[in-house]
Amino acid sequence: MELERIDSVPASYPMIGGESPHSYSKNSSHQGRLIEASKDLINEAIEVNLDIETTCLSGTIGIADLGCSVGQNTFVAVQNVIEAIKNKYLSNSQNSQSLEFQVLFNDHSSNDFNTLFRSLPPSHKYYAAGVPGSFYHGLFPKSSIHFVHCSYALHWMPQVPKQVLDRKPSTWDKNNIHYLNASGELHDAYSAQFNNGMESFLNARAEELAIGGLMVIVMPGVPNKSILSEIAPAMSFGFFESCLAEMVKQEYISQEKVNSFYIPHYYPTSEEFEALIMQNGNFSIERMGVLNKRMSNIALSIEMAVGTVRAAMDVLFKEQFGDEATDQLYERYAMKVAENFHLFESKIREHEDLFVILKRRKN
Amino acid sequence: MELERIDSVPASYPMIGGESPHSYSKNSSHQGRLIEASKDLINEAIEVNLDIETTCLSGTIGIADLGCSVGQNTFVAVQNVIEAIKNKYLSNSQNSQSLEFQVLFNDHSSNDFNTLFRSLPPSHKYYAAGVPGSFYHGLFPKSSIHFVHCSYALHWMPQVPKQVLDRKPSTWDKNNIHYLNASGELHDAYSAQFNNGMESFLNARAEELAIGGLMVIVMPGVPNKSILSEIAPAMSFGFFESCLAEMVKQEYISQEKVNSFYIPHYYPTSEEFEALIMQNGNFSIERMGVLNKRMSNIALSIEMAVGTVRAAMDVLFKEQFGDEATDQLYERYAMKVAENFHLFESKIREHEDLFVILKRRKN
Repeated sequence: MELERIDSVPASYPMIGGESPHSYSKNSSHQGRLIEASKDLINEAIEVNLDIETTCLSGTIGIADLGCSVGQNTFVAVQNVIEAIKNKYLSNSQNSQSLEFQVLFNDHSSNDFNTLFRSLPPSHKYYAAGVPGSFYHGLFPKSSIHFVHCSYALHWMPQVPKQVLDRKPSTWDKNNIHYLNASGELHDAYSAQFNNGMESFLNARAEELAIGGLMVIVMPGVPNKSILSEIAPAMSFGFFESCLAEMVKQEYISQEKVNSFYIPHYYPTSEEFEALIMQNGNFSIERMGVLNKRMSNIALSIEMAVGTVRAAMDVLFKEQFGDEATDQLYERYAMKVAENFHLFESKIREHEDLFVILKRRKN
Repeated sequence: MELERIDSVPASYPMIGGESPHSYSKNSSHQGRLIEASKDLINEAIEVNLDIETTCLSGTIGIADLGCSVGQNTFVAVQNVIEAIKNKYLSNSQNSQSLEFQVLFNDHSSNDFNTLFRSLPPSHKYYAAGVPGSFYHGLFPKSSIHFVHCSYALHWMPQVPKQVLDRKPSTWDKNNIHYLNASGELHDAYSAQFNNGMESFLNARAEELAIGGLMVIVMPGVPNKSILSEIAPAMSFGFFESCLAEMVKQEYISQEKVNSFYIPHYYPTSEEFEALIMQNGNFSIERMGVLNKRMSNIALSIEMAVGTVRAAMDVLFKEQFGDEATDQLYERYAMKVAENFHLFESKIREHEDLFVILKRRKN
C-alpha cells in the first residue's frame, strides 16, 4: 500500500504555560496535539467511510476510547467523533430520529476512573461509562460499538516477551532496556510479541465493532527502512540505558535490577502494521499515513522532554527501582538530554506517528 | 393492593467478626443481608415474570445496579441475577445461543469507582462498566437494559426540599434534622420532594428498560398506619437531634449549623409507594412486600448501630459540622444508643424494608 503523508497539523501550537513539570496538562500536550492533528482526518473518515444508515439504525451509537487515561484529551476526542457522526446523519434531510450516544471510556482497572468521571464535561450530551480492563481482551458485547478511537496506547504491549525475561543477560547487551538499541534477537522477540498482541487486539475489536464500523488508531511508529538506533526513541532509551549503567557502577542500583527491566513498548513501521492487519483479515484499511509535521512548529524544552517520558513511564520505573533511584534517574536523564539537546530535538522533529483508519469487514 | 409479607430470610446470619467499627464489611452487613434475603425472591421473579425470549433475543442482556457503592454486595447481587436469567433461558432446550451480559454499575461520580473496579471478582463472566451519575436522571441508552437492581439507595432523595431549606427555623422545631420527629408540615415537604424524585426516577427507567424488563427495588419503608415518631429511624434521628442540641448548648457548634442541616432520606409506606408507581403508569407491580424477618435472628450491638449509621452518613455530617464535631457527635450518639439499647433494639427488630418487583409495561 502506498503510504500517504498527512500534513494536516495547523501551523502553530502555543505551549500551555504556568504548570509544574509533572502536571498532566504539560505532559499530555503531545497526545493532545495528536488529537487535534487527527480531528480533520477523523471527520473525513466518518464523512467518507462510515455507513451512516446502518450505524444509526437503532438510534443508539456506541463509541469507545481505548486507553483513555485521564484528562481532557479523551473528552475532546470523543466529542469530535460525535459531532462528525451527527453532521453526517443530519446532512441527509430524510433523517430525523434523535440519536443517542453511549461513550465507553476504557483503560486498565488501575487507571484513575474517579478523576476521569469527576472531570467529565458538565455539558456532555452522551451516556458515559467507564470500562476497566485490557484492550487485548474483549471489553464490550458483540457488535455493540460503531466507532473505536485508540490514540497513543497500542505501543504498550500486553507484556514484555517471555523469552526476553527468561534470557541469560550475557547473551544480549546487559544494559539494554528496550530493543531499539539492542541486537536483532531482542527486536525479533519484541516484534513477535507485538504481532501476537495485535492479533488479540484485532480479534477482540472484530467481535465488538458492528459491520461497517470504524476504528481509528494513532500510535508512534518508525519510518520504513530507517536505522532503528538512529530514531528519537532510541536516543531517549539510550540516555536511560547509560544513566542506569552509571547508577550500577556507582552502586545506587544492582546490575540484576537492570538486567530484568524492559520497557514494553513497540514502534512498528507502517509496512509491518499493514501486514498485521491484512493477515488478521477482519478489517479493511481505509486510510493509512503518518502525522509527520506534528512537532515541526512547537517549542521543545528539556523539561518537556523529561516530563512527557516521566508521565508515561513513572510507574514502570518506580516498580523496578523504587522512588528514590527513579527520581535520580530522571535527574541524570535530564542532564543527558541537556548535553545532547540539539541532536535530540532534531530527531524528535523527525519522529513519525502512524494514523490508520480501519473498517470492520462483512464476515 | 394486598401487601404480602415475605418471610424468606434464612434463620441465622453470623456476624462477621474481627474488623474495625468503621470498616466496610461490618457496616454494609445490613445491606448484604438484604441482598441475601432478596435472592430467592429475585430468582422467582425472573422465573415467573421475565419475558425470557424477548430479553435474550439479541444475545446481549443489560443489567444495571443503581447506587452500587463499593464492595462485594453489588457483585453478589448481579451474579444472582445473571445465574437466574441463564437458568431460565437454558431451561428451554430450544435455546442454544450463548448469552452475553453487560453489567452497568451506577453510582454518583463521587463514588469510589477505582476501588469498585479493582475489586471486581477475577472470575466474573460479564462485561463490566461503571456509570457515574444520579439515577434521578437518564443513565443508559433507550431500551438497553433488561434488569434493574436498586437496593438501599432510593431513600436518598435527590436533595433536601427547597421549602425546607428556605424556611424560617422558628416555624418548625429548630432542632429537627429530619421529618420523622417533626411537624406534619416538614413531612409534607419531604413527601412532595420524594414524589417528584420518584417520578423522575421511574420516567428515566421507563426509557431505559426494554419492554418486559424487570426492576427490583429494596428500600427502607415504614409500616402502613404506623406512628412515625415511634419507629426505629425516628428514634435514631431523635438521638442525633438531642446530641446536636446539647452540642449547641455547650457551644461546640452553632444553632445556625443545626438549623440548616437536614438528612435527605425518605421512608415511604408501601401504600404510598404503590400509589406513586400506579400514578406514573409505566410499570406494572408484579410483587410487593416487606422483608420483615430480616433482623430477627442476628445479634445487635451498639457498635453495629453506630457503624451502620456512620458508614452511610459520615460525608453528610462532616460537610456540615466538620470532622471534629462529627466525631464527637458519634460518641454522644453511641452513649444515647447504649442508654436506650433495649428499646432501640426492639424497634430495630420491627423495622421493615420494602421489596418491589416492577415490570416495564408495553407503551
